[in-house]
Amino acid sequence: MQELQIKVPATVPQDYTITIGTGLLPSLWPKVESTFARHSKFVVTDANVASAGHLDTLLAGQTVPHFVIEPAGEASKNIETTVAIIEAMEKAYLGRDTVVVALGGGTVGDMAGFAAAIFKRGVPVIQIPTTTLAQADSAVGGKTGVDSSVSKNAFGAFWHPAAVYVDVATLQTLDDRQYRAGLVESIKHALIADREYFDFLESRLDAILAREPEVLEAIAGYNCRIKGDVVEADPHERNQRRMLNYGHTIGHAAESVSNYELLHGEAIAIGIVAAGLIEVEMGLSEPQRLDRVRRILEKLSVPVKLPAHLDEKKLIDILKHDKKAVDKWPKFVLISDLGQVHCPDGKYAVDVSRDTVEKVLRKLS
Amino acid sequence: MQELQIKVPATVPQDYTITIGTGLLPSLWPKVESTFARHSKFVVTDANVASAGHLDTLLAGQTVPHFVIEPAGEASKNIETTVAIIEAMEKAYLGRDTVVVALGGGTVGDMAGFAAAIFKRGVPVIQIPTTTLAQADSAVGGKTGVDSSVSKNAFGAFWHPAAVYVDVATLQTLDDRQYRAGLVESIKHALIADREYFDFLESRLDAILAREPEVLEAIAGYNCRIKGDVVEADPHERNQRRMLNYGHTIGHAAESVSNYELLHGEAIAIGIVAAGLIEVEMGLSEPQRLDRVRRILEKLSVPVKLPAHLDEKKLIDILKHDKKAVDKWPKFVLISDLGQVHCPDGKYAVDVSRDTVEKVLRKLS
Repeated sequence: MQELQIKVPATVPQDYTITIGTGLLPSLWPKVESTFARHSKFVVTDANVASAGHLDTLLAGQTVPHFVIEPAGEASKNIETTVAIIEAMEKAYLGRDTVVVALGGGTVGDMAGFAAAIFKRGVPVIQIPTTTLAQADSAVGGKTGVDSSVSKNAFGAFWHPAAVYVDVATLQTLDDRQYRAGLVESIKHALIADREYFDFLESRLDAILAREPEVLEAIAGYNCRIKGDVVEADPHERNQRRMLNYGHTIGHAAESVSNYELLHGEAIAIGIVAAGLIEVEMGLSEPQRLDRVRRILEKLSVPVKLPAHLDEKKLIDILKHDKKAVDKWPKFVLISDLGQVHCPDGKYAVDVSRDTVEKVLRKLS
Repeated sequence: MQELQIKVPATVPQDYTITIGTGLLPSLWPKVESTFARHSKFVVTDANVASAGHLDTLLAGQTVPHFVIEPAGEASKNIETTVAIIEAMEKAYLGRDTVVVALGGGTVGDMAGFAAAIFKRGVPVIQIPTTTLAQADSAVGGKTGVDSSVSKNAFGAFWHPAAVYVDVATLQTLDDRQYRAGLVESIKHALIADREYFDFLESRLDAILAREPEVLEAIAGYNCRIKGDVVEADPHERNQRRMLNYGHTIGHAAESVSNYELLHGEAIAIGIVAAGLIEVEMGLSEPQRLDRVRRILEKLSVPVKLPAHLDEKKLIDILKHDKKAVDKWPKFVLISDLGQVHCPDGKYAVDVSRDTVEKVLRKLS
């Protein structure tokens, strides 16, 4: 018998820049061309973003191979669309020297990022998020993935972007429901990491809902800094990064049981209230803190209760399939104060009994 | 406008052990259980390996969730099989705390490794290769992938194994054609890295073809050391690792145009002869060296010419789709001597004109 040791060396640290501004898109393509001069480009977007005119604005008359996901939204976020994107890249004779440009919301970023991660064993991706959700959350951090017929993001990879461009002007064309739902991730960031940011969101909510560019740039800055700090500390979600899943355990399950009639942010709003109820149950919070959270969510007109007729048993079943489940029951991220994750013994996700979760689900109905 | 820098930290170096022996399989499962005590296990194998009895030998009566790829071979190496593997894992309620165990040849290792790479954004994989091809090559090095309808390994990831167990006793049940074709990767290793190993293969070929355990352990040791050294130096194929593609550029294309009637090793044998002809054309080799290479391949009874009626235009078209293609034409790995890659200016893959390739293809017909 022989034994050989193979030492796979560490990867080099990877830096990327997030650029935030208003009206970046019309002059962005030359910057992409010069920054990635040695790469072929392939743009992935969706039907909504294309009809809003953003693809034309970005390309400014240049002919660039691209793929328009149709229909837009969660319904297309599956492996079949990934295969279609990759086969389109192959048919355009693109090789490993390609950079994928993701122009759109969270589902576009997730799908384009995942396609980039697995195309010929990986090519870089540039994220250009165009929704409140993607600008706050999904464009930064490198989580990519698509859903299976069984659960959300069953297929995926950690694949950090090579650059991120946040143009808050693209939010002006977003429909109201999407716009509001996407702001829930901003509230989540404030809850887990920054009490001052929570105060800012409460006090400037009218300006945010009026889509004033200055305040939109400000919240993009807060979001990217908070998310970036967490991702830098723990890029592969071994521990600390789990705090970003605040509200997501029950949120994801509700999103799935609703058959994606709930938007992601709407489902996370319910998940945040669920986390708040668990915190009250476990003595981590006074009810007043939860009231304050519920009030800002209500002002956003996102749901704070489970939709009627939602199958609670199915929701419990989906919790058992949670990616983070260990021994078929997920752990939960909770906060001990505004801006402060509950972190006993250095663990950012903690045990919550099934009884407590069931009790909270009844209160949410 | 604001700019934020995100610094994704380097990954830690990842060590793994390759264990080589004869008759490891019957006592391996307890070792897997103790080394990966905190992980759920999921075994991926194929119909051939299962009928050869290796799955039963490995599990030794234990009930472990598993997936048997059917039919065995390249025809199943596609995204549909990957989806089926992952959905089987989900239906077994497996989470991120799972280790995938790949028991089989190159296609099993590629598919199981790729499924592990993308299941819930990545879980570890243990490789237990059972063919001459997989033991020499694919089980070590972390290349995983599946084919699209357009080209080979269009989908894939670099995903290094957490452990490799090479039991040369499993080779006794391999059919003769597979056995011989798989040895071509051993010849490739000798050609690119170790002249003494080439002498060893030449002088011990009868013992190798008689499947004598001692000589099989010896070549497994040579192969894993050569492959491991290259992978350690360049895990993501930026430069030096390209030497492992010796014979693979035309080999892959021939494999594809033959519609996988050529086994991988058979196609690589043709590719190695093609590389030799290019070397003679370019003045890198005397014809005598190529004769010596051709002789050992002929003794293995693998093809050294393109099959009759193979569509040469289609082959050229596939070369343009090569993963390593830049500007729609691949670079080629060549050797300047036995055991020595031709490496001008530190480049392990060099330009070869389309004219030269077409001339060589005519000589190969």
